[in-house]
Parts: sequence; C-alpha cells; structure tokens
Amino acid sequence: MQARVDGDRVRLDERGRERFYDSRGYGHPVDGELHLSPVETAHLLYRGDLDSVDGMGFRAFLEREDGLASRFLVYKDLRDRGFYLTPARDGWVDGAAEETPPADIDFVVYPRGKGPWDDAVAYRMRVVAERASVPVDALGDVVLAVVDEESELTYLETTRPDVSGTAPDPTDTTAEAALLNDRLLAWNPPERLHTAGFYGRWLGDDHAALQLSLLEGVYLAERGVLSVPGGRDAVLARGREAAGDRFDRRLAVYTALRERGVVPKTGFKFGADFRTYAEVSSVDDLGHSERLVRVLSPGHAFRPRDLSLDVRLAHGVRKEMVFAVTEGAPGAPSGDAAWLAVSRLTP
Amino acid sequence: MQARVDGDRVRLDERGRERFYDSRGYGHPVDGELHLSPVETAHLLYRGDLDSVDGMGFRAFLEREDGLASRFLVYKDLRDRGFYLTPARDGWVDGAAEETPPADIDFVVYPRGKGPWDDAVAYRMRVVAERASVPVDALGDVVLAVVDEESELTYLETTRPDVSGTAPDPTDTTAEAALLNDRLLAWNPPERLHTAGFYGRWLGDDHAALQLSLLEGVYLAERGVLSVPGGRDAVLARGREAAGDRFDRRLAVYTALRERGVVPKTGFKFGADFRTYAEVSSVDDLGHSERLVRVLSPGHAFRPRDLSLDVRLAHGVRKEMVFAVTEGAPGAPSGDAAWLAVSRLTP
Repeated sequence: MQARVDGDRVRLDERGRERFYDSRGYGHPVDGELHLSPVETAHLLYRGDLDSVDGMGFRAFLEREDGLASRFLVYKDLRDRGFYLTPARDGWVDGAAEETPPADIDFVVYPRGKGPWDDAVAYRMRVVAERASVPVDALGDVVLAVVDEESELTYLETTRPDVSGTAPDPTDTTAEAALLNDRLLAWNPPERLHTAGFYGRWLGDDHAALQLSLLEGVYLAERGVLSVPGGRDAVLARGREAAGDRFDRRLAVYTALRERGVVPKTGFKFGADFRTYAEVSSVDDLGHSERLVRVLSPGHAFRPRDLSLDVRLAHGVRKEMVFAVTEGAPGAPSGDAAWLAVSRLTP
Repeated sequence: MQARVDGDRVRLDERGRERFYDSRGYGHPVDGELHLSPVETAHLLYRGDLDSVDGMGFRAFLEREDGLASRFLVYKDLRDRGFYLTPARDGWVDGAAEETPPADIDFVVYPRGKGPWDDAVAYRMRVVAERASVPVDALGDVVLAVVDEESELTYLETTRPDVSGTAPDPTDTTAEAALLNDRLLAWNPPERLHTAGFYGRWLGDDHAALQLSLLEGVYLAERGVLSVPGGRDAVLARGREAAGDRFDRRLAVYTALRERGVVPKTGFKFGADFRTYAEVSSVDDLGHSERLVRVLSPGHAFRPRDLSLDVRLAHGVRKEMVFAVTEGAPGAPSGDAAWLAVSRLTP
C-alpha cells in the first residue's frame, strides 16, 4: 500500500481509508483518501500493517521525531486495551473535543466498541512527561496520561467534584479561649461545639479544655462564637506568623468548606491540608472522611510526581483527592474556591 | 506540699522527691530536693497531684509559657501510654542521652517499667510543631513527636538503615541504543540486561526494543555496556536538560544503590525517586520492592507534613521510606549517600 509523508501527516489512498479507517478507526478521511498522524503511522508500522513509509520502517519512523515515542506508548497502550482513539488535531475531532480546546489534549478516546464515526467520547487525554509542569487551570475534564522516566504509564482522571454536605455548624453558642502559641484552649466550652460541630479536640478525658486550631479559632471568633483576648485579629496574626500567606488561603478554603456543610479537619497524617466529612450526626458516631483536600494558589502548576504521590495515598486510604484553588490574588484569597478531583484511572 | 518556681524550674522538698521521683520518675533530684521542669510541673498540676505552684493552678501555669502546651501534650501522651520520661536538660540525662546532644532532643523516654534510675533508653524524642523546619542532619537516632495544628500527635522514628542487597548487575554485556527525547531505545539487546539486571522495560511483546531511562542509560554507558550516539555525555546532557542538578543527585544515588547490590526502579507511582529490590533472582519471579527512596540534597530541611505524606504512603504499600542524602556540594554530588529511614511509631 502506498503511504507517503506530506508535511505533518501521512497520506494513504482510498484503499487505505477502507482498510484502516472504516474498519479500525485510524486516521482522518479527507476527500476519499486517509490522512494519518505520525503516532497512528508508527502504530501501523509497529504492527506490520504498513511495511514502510517513504522507505522508513518502524524504528526509523519512531526515531524521526523526538516527542513521538511517548505519545506512541500511550496510543499503543490504549489500542492494546481495546480502544479506538483519534489524535486531537484541528479539524479532526472538533465535535468530540468541544469542551476542551484540541490544543490542551492529545487524543480523543472513544468508548470501547465505538469509533470516530460515533458521537460518544470516553476520555479527552493529554500525554505528559514525568518532568512536565501541568497548570492546574488546564485540568478538570481531561485525563492525564503520564509517561514516567521508565516509560510506564499512569492515567490520572481529573474532574470537577460537587463539594457539599449536610454537617451542622453550631455557631449559635459561645465560649472563651486563650491563645497559646499555635493553638487555642477553650476552657469549659459548650460540649456541642465539639460533639455537634466537630470543632477542636479535648485536652483530657474530663473535657475541661477544648484545644482549637488557629483556623478554627479565626473562623469561630469571626462568627462571634469565640471570645479570645485580642479577638479574631490576634488569632489571624498568629496564624500568619506561623504560615504566612498560606494561612489566609487555608482559611478561605476552611470557610468555603464549612459554608458548604462539610467539616474540615486536619489532613496532617495524610500529608494534606484537610480531611473532610460531609455528614456529621455525632462525633461519637463519626463516619469515614471522604476526601483529602490540598490547598493551592491560583496559577499553580503540578509536577506529575507530586500528583502521583497525593493520588496514590488518597487511593490507599479510600478517599478522593481534591485540590482547592483559592480565588482572588495569591496574597489575598477571597470567596469560594475552585475544586478539582484527581484519581487514578485504569482505562 | 510546698512547690515554688525558681528560674526555669520548680523546687520541691524531700517529701516531693520521695513521692514524685522515687516512686514515679518525675524530675531530677538535687541535694535531697526535687527539681521539676515546667512540663512535669504542668502534668502534676493537671493530674491534681499538685494543687498549685506559687498560687498558679494548671491553667495559669500552662498559659504562662508559650511553647509549653505542645511539650505538655507529648509528655502527657507518653505518661498515658505508661512511660516514664525525663526532659533532656543539661545535667539531667547526660548518660542516657549520650549519643544525641540534649540540645537536639526534648525528652529521654525509658522503656516501660524502667525509669530515670535505670540505664536503658527507649526513645530520644524531639517535639516539633507541624510548621517547623527539621534539618535532615539532626535525624537518624531520634523520634520526632509532631504536634499538628489540631494538637494530634504523630510519632516518626528515624534510623540509619543498612542499604545493601544481593542483586546481580550483568554489566559484562553490550547493546546499542538510540536517544529518543527523555528515554533510550536499545534494539535487540541481550535479554539478560532485562531478565537478570532488571534494566529497562520492553516496548512490546516481541522484545525487539528495550526502553531505558536516562539514568539507566548513563549508568550503562559509563560501564561500557551501552553504545549510544554521543556516548555517556550525550545522555547525561539530556538528563540535565530535563531535570537540572537533580539529575546528577539522582544518578549518584542510583549508582550507589546498584553498587550496593540493590536494584532501583522508578518510584513514580509512589511519588518517590525509586522503589528498590534487594534481591532479583529473575524478573519473571520478582518479589516485592522493599523500599521507597527519595533523593535529597545536603542540608535539606523537612516540613513535617511532607514527611508525614511520604511515611504514610510507604506504610500503606508495605515499604520502608528511605531518604538518600547525596554527599559533596549540592551541584556536584559525589560518592555514596547518607541513608535515613523514617517510619511511623506507636510508642
């Protein structure tokens, strides 16, 4: 079969279209012929379905373009798993890739049993190297196919979760507290603050003192629940002393979670900012925390390895990994946050 | 009982020594009297064993000193768990703390059933806040007691592991490879390279091409195993392009591990630099990888939350978390590495 390189594509005649597109979903038909992208061409060469292109076999064709190998690995893996997929080139996948500009993805993957002639899309996929930098804004409806340094693949699905819950917030109560280094102690507070609102942690079994975090302290002082020498501002100042701008970002996310009926508690044991509970009927009968939340500033760029670490850990403890990107300027977060969930995917 | 503040200690008379030191291991006896540190005093006040000190009850005494609360939490927790422990003050624990300067630790904890009058030591413990910065050099024979923002405790044990294994390194073979972006492809290499040495990853089932990482490429080119256009230097240059100085540090650790009979493979899926195998009889019959290794530069300081993340993940996948600190200048690592293992401890 005649196949020849023409700029950034490989052109096949009508027989090629029948054989590779109509029955197996390769390429993009144009005026009766078939146009193949380099990665599709490499795959057909690898399989022996094409013998050569302009005299090049698989090896020569693969070595011709520096970045082709990693895209090839992903393309091959998805084909091996029984998927048809199309490189996300302008004009090739316009309808299917509607929600994501083709520039942000590499492949449109169809559900098993479907192909480019159908409307359905299983995944919008972006291939990234382990050492790439991945801006958080580009995520939310794409799957990252990370090719690590040893050419192993990890698929990470990114979605926009609905973060909301039904946990009560008993802010119709009052308590007094002292500021002690980076925590507060509320002496003989109303038990409900802890039992219903899941604020703080008792110092001892007698419940004489409730230890509150600086975040809880600012939040409760702001709502008139907590009286503390120096007021809310003193607690806020202590938080900024300890954590700088980060304190404000974490406070913005803490507040957004509480306002959405979700209880945030420290995620320290999981290396995250928060673990969250969407339902709290009573602290004595507390369910599993469903999510781990890491707070990011606007414009954050992920290193895939850090993502892999967070997602793997969350998976291991049966929680969903969620990133909260604060709104407003980096130093002055305001209002709500944008939520991004990332999980491992086995296509 | 008479108890009075004298500088940085609280002094009790002989009756106090009999009651609190002789039978319960509090304080440090001096000339028949008993000297208590603030944290011990706070604990005796908390328990009601002392009513007041210079008119101060538990609350007033605890609020008197800013950093006391977190040390108190750890002291109380260890007492609750049945341990006797002594604040690591100069002159109080000289023998017991011999290996670690008292300045680097807060408490010497004795084995259950033992006390300050015995020689045995269970843990040398250092109390750190979640937001502290912990230099890697100060670790290796101490236990970190991390007090997180919600006053929960996490104990992290640090040790110096023996990193060595019996894995073969079949460098008496040769292969040719091409450099493709951030990986190498060796075409039709000797199978042993992979099956005995666990180098690389096959591109397909026909074993026509072995994909090697840039680290494996440099290591094998340096040993004359791999011929690649431009030689070892071309691969090294590509690695530095992708990862900067970090590539050299990772290479130093990769090399140190191989020379110690341990096989390093990528730790990407675990967010680490490497996972390691101390025994490799055959790749087809590969055991569990025992360790996760993260490479650090000299002088690195941990944030406890990052440590918590790594250690929790490693624990979840039944591996030991090991940090490798390269030697030599930060930009020019050389020779071996210093190894540090960190694991969760339940005292």
